[in-house]
Amino acid sequence: MLLLEGKSVSKALRAKVKEEIAALSSAVKRVPGLAVILVGEDPASQVYVRNKEKACEEVGITSYSYRLPHDIGQENLIKLIRELNADDRVDGILLQLPLPEGLNTQACLQAIDPRKDVDGLHPENQGRLALGLKALRPCTPAGTLFLLDYYKYDLEGKNCVVLGRSHLVGRPLAMMLNDKTMNATVTMCHSKTRNLKEICRQADFIFLAIGRPRFLTPDMVKEDAVIIDIGINRTEDGLCGDADFKALEGKVAAMTPVPGGIGLMTISQLLENTMQAWKYAMGLIRLEDLA
Amino acid sequence: MLLLEGKSVSKALRAKVKEEIAALSSAVKRVPGLAVILVGEDPASQVYVRNKEKACEEVGITSYSYRLPHDIGQENLIKLIRELNADDRVDGILLQLPLPEGLNTQACLQAIDPRKDVDGLHPENQGRLALGLKALRPCTPAGTLFLLDYYKYDLEGKNCVVLGRSHLVGRPLAMMLNDKTMNATVTMCHSKTRNLKEICRQADFIFLAIGRPRFLTPDMVKEDAVIIDIGINRTEDGLCGDADFKALEGKVAAMTPVPGGIGLMTISQLLENTMQAWKYAMGLIRLEDLA
Ligand SMILES: NC(=O)c1ccc[n+]([C@@H]2O[C@H](COP(=O)([O-])OP(=O)(O)OC[C@H]3O[C@@H](n4cnc5c(N)ncnc54)[C@H](OP(=O)(O)O)[C@@H]3O)[C@@H](O)[C@H]2O)c1
Ligand SMILES: NC(=O)c1ccc[n+]([C@@H]2O[C@H](COP(=O)([O-])OP(=O)(O)OC[C@H]3O[C@@H](n4cnc5c(N)ncnc54)[C@H](OP(=O)(O)O)[C@@H]3O)[C@@H](O)[C@H]2O)c1
Repeated sequence: MLLLEGKSVSKALRAKVKEEIAALSSAVKRVPGLAVILVGEDPASQVYVRNKEKACEEVGITSYSYRLPHDIGQENLIKLIRELNADDRVDGILLQLPLPEGLNTQACLQAIDPRKDVDGLHPENQGRLALGLKALRPCTPAGTLFLLDYYKYDLEGKNCVVLGRSHLVGRPLAMMLNDKTMNATVTMCHSKTRNLKEICRQADFIFLAIGRPRFLTPDMVKEDAVIIDIGINRTEDGLCGDADFKALEGKVAAMTPVPGGIGLMTISQLLENTMQAWKYAMGLIRLEDLA
Repeated sequence: MLLLEGKSVSKALRAKVKEEIAALSSAVKRVPGLAVILVGEDPASQVYVRNKEKACEEVGITSYSYRLPHDIGQENLIKLIRELNADDRVDGILLQLPLPEGLNTQACLQAIDPRKDVDGLHPENQGRLALGLKALRPCTPAGTLFLLDYYKYDLEGKNCVVLGRSHLVGRPLAMMLNDKTMNATVTMCHSKTRNLKEICRQADFIFLAIGRPRFLTPDMVKEDAVIIDIGINRTEDGLCGDADFKALEGKVAAMTPVPGGIGLMTISQLLENTMQAWKYAMGLIRLEDLA
């Protein structure tokens, strides 16, 4: 089995981003800036946010941290977002999800200027994605595509099954795979899907984004399938994905590990998106030229 | 085989729209208005546009016609759209597609105020749809869902195959079927799909939107499948759909005819969308309450 290593691929992506920033920033006299907003004290979110800020530093993006109390209130949060929209040092705004109860996630996401929406969750960016136009794309699916491309997979006409339909991962991933640039045939599954085993057994590629530890087992896959495991689950024996890695190892053609797989791609893609937003803000590219 | 009659279902939808308009318009002292823009002389488009205007009249919507020469020019067209955006009599703006060569379709569609975008093609509306938020939805897929609902089909967990991935029909339809309100399992196919016959033979519902006369034949369907034929093809022996209706009749459980099927639903849904846009403009409903 081929191990699809997020580590080396994400390194390659980060090196590319770092190089591009270094090459361009002297000319425009400003480096890219990312505002990272964390509301509340969720421990997992704290880790994610720290990792993102560290990654920024690594490639030459200045990060601006906003740690807010869980009871900040909707209006204050939106006021901050508006200020960041208007702040010329800030090219990207990342609002770490999930938000604490009492805050309206949609309203906050929609307050972000679509040009600074490096998570690709604003309706305008999701709509541009659905329409096959260039846009800032959600980091996890976009990073997944980068990994597939790195390993030179050609998905045209291949049967792809996507498990999970969240707006953050499963849905936009299905759209991208089905698009004219990828040309895969895509089946979108979720918790109400009935004959999941049968469907998965016909898949050339299976994308897991459900958050169920070791859900995918050998009886559910055909030989030589490629497994892209996006799930991140905290269990008693540490982090694991949505695939039963050990059990599948002997059967499938290739698989991403967890940790060390798509999670790393997600962060690298955030850096790429921030750089894209910066290039757009600096007038170096047009909206149509976003990656 | 059950014939899924667009005629009676679209009548029901139009009656509902007519009734609602009659009930509300005296209070708000204004009936809904739809601006219909046709650029150039395409004969099929002329027929469509006339039918839409007739349908408006039938339910109490005032239509405003704009017949423009094929060489109107991008700037003039966008200027007209902007005027209609600002025109208080106009709740919906319909730009008949395809546009003649030389005009940028995306730029024109994006110039339409999303609140008046009764065809649901603006990125904001497509994005809201992708995010599962209420929005003005493309008429053909929304009308298709109305028909399914009329016949009380429950698609939860059912295998649905959508042939065609246009932004007008196939793509938004796949999104809607896969959404939490419908909960179908959806496979999205297109011209690059390899094992189409095999995929279709597993479908409980097949949605055809490819524009290939009599493409779907009995060897491609399982018994008791439901066929929703959205294709409209002009052939030497008149209009026909993407399904070989005569050949399939003896095998499937239900099918829409062409003509007399989804085409009628599309126009009725346009009336519904225009009414929704009007209710929104009159402050009778909020964005979140769109149908
Ligand atoms: N690698 C990364 O960088 C990254 C980034 C984001 C998320 N993740 C991980 O990816 C996973 C999914 O995240 P998310 O935000 O997309 O989660 P989510 O919003 O909770 O969505 C989970 C989806 O999985 C579906 N599902 C749940 N159980 C299922 C089952 N038994 N069979 C089929 N479908 C099932 C749900 O179906 P319904 O819609 O019917 O409820 C839902 O669509 C999580 O483990 C998360 O930690 C990883
Ligand atoms: N009933 C109505 O009210 C209504 C409304 C709109 C349209 N229509 C009709 O619906 C049909 C589709 O319209 P549209 O605007 O969506 O058309 P379109 O933009 O031309 O898209 C056609 C789609 O079908 C796919 N396709 C073509 N040949 C195929 C094949 N052999 N196997 C699988 N997929 C194939 C294409 O794949 P690629 O993407 O790979 O090219 C494309 O995605 C037309 O007949 C149109 O007249 C009806």
